[in-house]
Amino acid sequence: MKSVIEYIEKNHDRYLEELKEFLKIPSISTDASHAQDVKNAAEYVGQQLQKAGMERVEIFPTPGHPIVYGERITNEEKPTVLVYGHYDVQPVDPIELWQSPPFEPTVRDGELYARGAADDKGQMFIHFKSAEAYLECGKQLPVNIKYLIEGEEEIGSPNLNSFIDSHSDLLKADVVMVSDTTMFARGVPSICYGLRGLVYFQIDVSAASTDLHSGSFGGVVANPAFELSTILSTMKDDHGRITIPRFYDDVRDLTDRERQEFARLPFDEEAYKKDIGVKQLSGEHGYTPLERLWTRPTFEINGMLSGFTGEGAKTVLPARAMAKVSLRLVPDQQPETIEDLFEDYVHELAPPFLEVAVTRMHGGKPWVASLDHPALVAAAQAIQKGFGKKPVFQREGGSIPVVATFAEQLDIPSVLFGIGLPDENAHAPNEKLDLGNFYGGIRSSAYFLDELSRTRIR
Amino acid sequence: MKSVIEYIEKNHDRYLEELKEFLKIPSISTDASHAQDVKNAAEYVGQQLQKAGMERVEIFPTPGHPIVYGERITNEEKPTVLVYGHYDVQPVDPIELWQSPPFEPTVRDGELYARGAADDKGQMFIHFKSAEAYLECGKQLPVNIKYLIEGEEEIGSPNLNSFIDSHSDLLKADVVMVSDTTMFARGVPSICYGLRGLVYFQIDVSAASTDLHSGSFGGVVANPAFELSTILSTMKDDHGRITIPRFYDDVRDLTDRERQEFARLPFDEEAYKKDIGVKQLSGEHGYTPLERLWTRPTFEINGMLSGFTGEGAKTVLPARAMAKVSLRLVPDQQPETIEDLFEDYVHELAPPFLEVAVTRMHGGKPWVASLDHPALVAAAQAIQKGFGKKPVFQREGGSIPVVATFAEQLDIPSVLFGIGLPDENAHAPNEKLDLGNFYGGIRSSAYFLDELSRTRIR
Repeated sequence: MKSVIEYIEKNHDRYLEELKEFLKIPSISTDASHAQDVKNAAEYVGQQLQKAGMERVEIFPTPGHPIVYGERITNEEKPTVLVYGHYDVQPVDPIELWQSPPFEPTVRDGELYARGAADDKGQMFIHFKSAEAYLECGKQLPVNIKYLIEGEEEIGSPNLNSFIDSHSDLLKADVVMVSDTTMFARGVPSICYGLRGLVYFQIDVSAASTDLHSGSFGGVVANPAFELSTILSTMKDDHGRITIPRFYDDVRDLTDRERQEFARLPFDEEAYKKDIGVKQLSGEHGYTPLERLWTRPTFEINGMLSGFTGEGAKTVLPARAMAKVSLRLVPDQQPETIEDLFEDYVHELAPPFLEVAVTRMHGGKPWVASLDHPALVAAAQAIQKGFGKKPVFQREGGSIPVVATFAEQLDIPSVLFGIGLPDENAHAPNEKLDLGNFYGGIRSSAYFLDELSRTRIR
Repeated sequence: MKSVIEYIEKNHDRYLEELKEFLKIPSISTDASHAQDVKNAAEYVGQQLQKAGMERVEIFPTPGHPIVYGERITNEEKPTVLVYGHYDVQPVDPIELWQSPPFEPTVRDGELYARGAADDKGQMFIHFKSAEAYLECGKQLPVNIKYLIEGEEEIGSPNLNSFIDSHSDLLKADVVMVSDTTMFARGVPSICYGLRGLVYFQIDVSAASTDLHSGSFGGVVANPAFELSTILSTMKDDHGRITIPRFYDDVRDLTDRERQEFARLPFDEEAYKKDIGVKQLSGEHGYTPLERLWTRPTFEINGMLSGFTGEGAKTVLPARAMAKVSLRLVPDQQPETIEDLFEDYVHELAPPFLEVAVTRMHGGKPWVASLDHPALVAAAQAIQKGFGKKPVFQREGGSIPVVATFAEQLDIPSVLFGIGLPDENAHAPNEKLDLGNFYGGIRSSAYFLDELSRTRIR
């Protein structure tokens, strides 16, 4: 390993330059006018994988943006790691808030600023460079490696599941490595071992067939905005508990070990509140903020619209009201079950004079790995070597549906090793990546391949 | 009278064309971009009043939209009628639901469709044409007549009270004639003797300083849309009673005579429901539909907006939520008192982590007249002649704050003689006016001037 790590140290500048080239490509997947850029980014990934010594590199077209695949099979007896990442990026608006142009990568104070620096070009790049380092040092890779790099993560990966389904042999592996999350804090290398799932709905309610005058009709016609408010406000009780019957039936309790691990994390509530501009944190009683964020389900109203919302006053009794709502799920809640429970409950709460339509928008399963899983143990050791510090184990409140997909469709566990930082601005102006974490990430990735070669995982 | 009525019959087509010209002017008072249109509408009113033979016509500027005044004093010994109306109209959204453009007046099946057709351009027009008819027939007006036509009724008449205050001599009269209400039903000419009052608010709530990701922050940050829904849904109990403390203290009970009169009215609940497209009527328990509409206060949400309301799904935890709400008041509730009670209650209901701002938009006092007043008796006789049918006495759920103002500031009783119909869509798409009622209204207005000349009113 010594020569590999030394090689990595010597090549920092080249890694940075190559990453900058990657970041210059404005591969915004949601914007049709950038379709060629997205394609160019896919080709750049292909070149990088070739450079990293992959024996097979293929760009698979999809109905949307292409999927890049690479592999190098060294020894069928050894474990196989599948690296997942995405080469597409978020839009850049509001562009005027960027201190340097989003697609002109710029280093300031040890941070590389560019759209995609953290999410996800910079993060996945560490796994290209670790493999490359072995081969450039004249060594064989200690394990088999595969890469699955998509270009539609920022638009909900509409073509990924069917690709995984139809390429399950190709993607056969022992562990998935994903670097698309953040560290708990600066200087705190982290492994994320749990994600929340999601169900998302639109609720449309109506009473009268048209908007009415609130004076001439108020008192005999139901107000859909009021009725919808009542339904929504009933969804949580005074203790922040969701009131949907049987909603908590499948919620897995926190283990004592988890509670202890979370309590040890350097969570600064005052700084956190200041950061997001709230006077006071809120949420379900009986749990700490991190417990609520990572291991407890939520009910949120994501949007709400009814009647007159312009300037001034209009005395309308609206015909309709609409809300977008979602529930974050935790293991072992099943999206389909929760969708059924939610929809039944809305209809049960709705008074008979109200027309109610519940539309299921999309969903994703929650996921949690065992802290004792050998792949996680190997990753923890690798990160400790790469960063000189034991990593913490954390969970994440958001959803990465592909992780649940790997678990369910391919029965492969995932290691979520993020080198981003909580203030990386992933979907905002001035996205950045700490270069120290970038180089530490490459080292850790190299160590991980080595650790994995000595791990009995099957 | 015969020649006047015959003259009116012969001029139907001209009346319609002149009204159409009026309706083409998009005088939306709440929309600053229509300020010039509102001004143009005021000038059109001035021209019409001149055409109707007014000896003095004046357009008074105000800090907002102008007030048009006209008068013809025939004989100081005779009673004076003050016609009140408004030339401004409601906004037209949702524009896509109009079958013909709101400012391109169109006749279909004997109904004139346009924004303002009923509320109030078409209704007040009948009183321009009745005076005009006397003079065009070479007759003197049987009474003195004054016109007070404002351009801010749809935004709460912010400058009318001070104008009335400072022009109390100019506006001196024996009775106010207002045509801005509806008939009880098609074919049932009506006099309205009571109105509900109004208070209107905008509520803005916020928690975090910016929109957040509902996955990464859901569970520790309050959801303003949920908190606002909870506040709003608390405003009424399961019996449809408003829960604001002391809200009902000043509500005057229905008299037995009123309950009996209302019960005799041809209210067809099935037809009513079908008309407005509701499965079932709702509202406060213990009162009939007409009692609820006319004599009981209400709480309504007029508009509601938060977060993402476009197509699809966005997992945002909104920073803000907004609602427009209003309460209809009945005698003897006072708007200022109710405003205070409401605002206190909202702040009492709001949790401490929520920023809450309550903005008072506008208000109006409720009003009720005595059924024995000589002006009401004269109007009833005129309507019987104009429509060939005895009118019914009803109340109205809407608010015409100026009626309370006339009663309080000038001590003048009002006659509310509406020729609109309950399905006229006054504040909604496809507003319309029945042309038969329009012409019957002109006749009745002419008869009213005649009846009034023989009424001892002072």
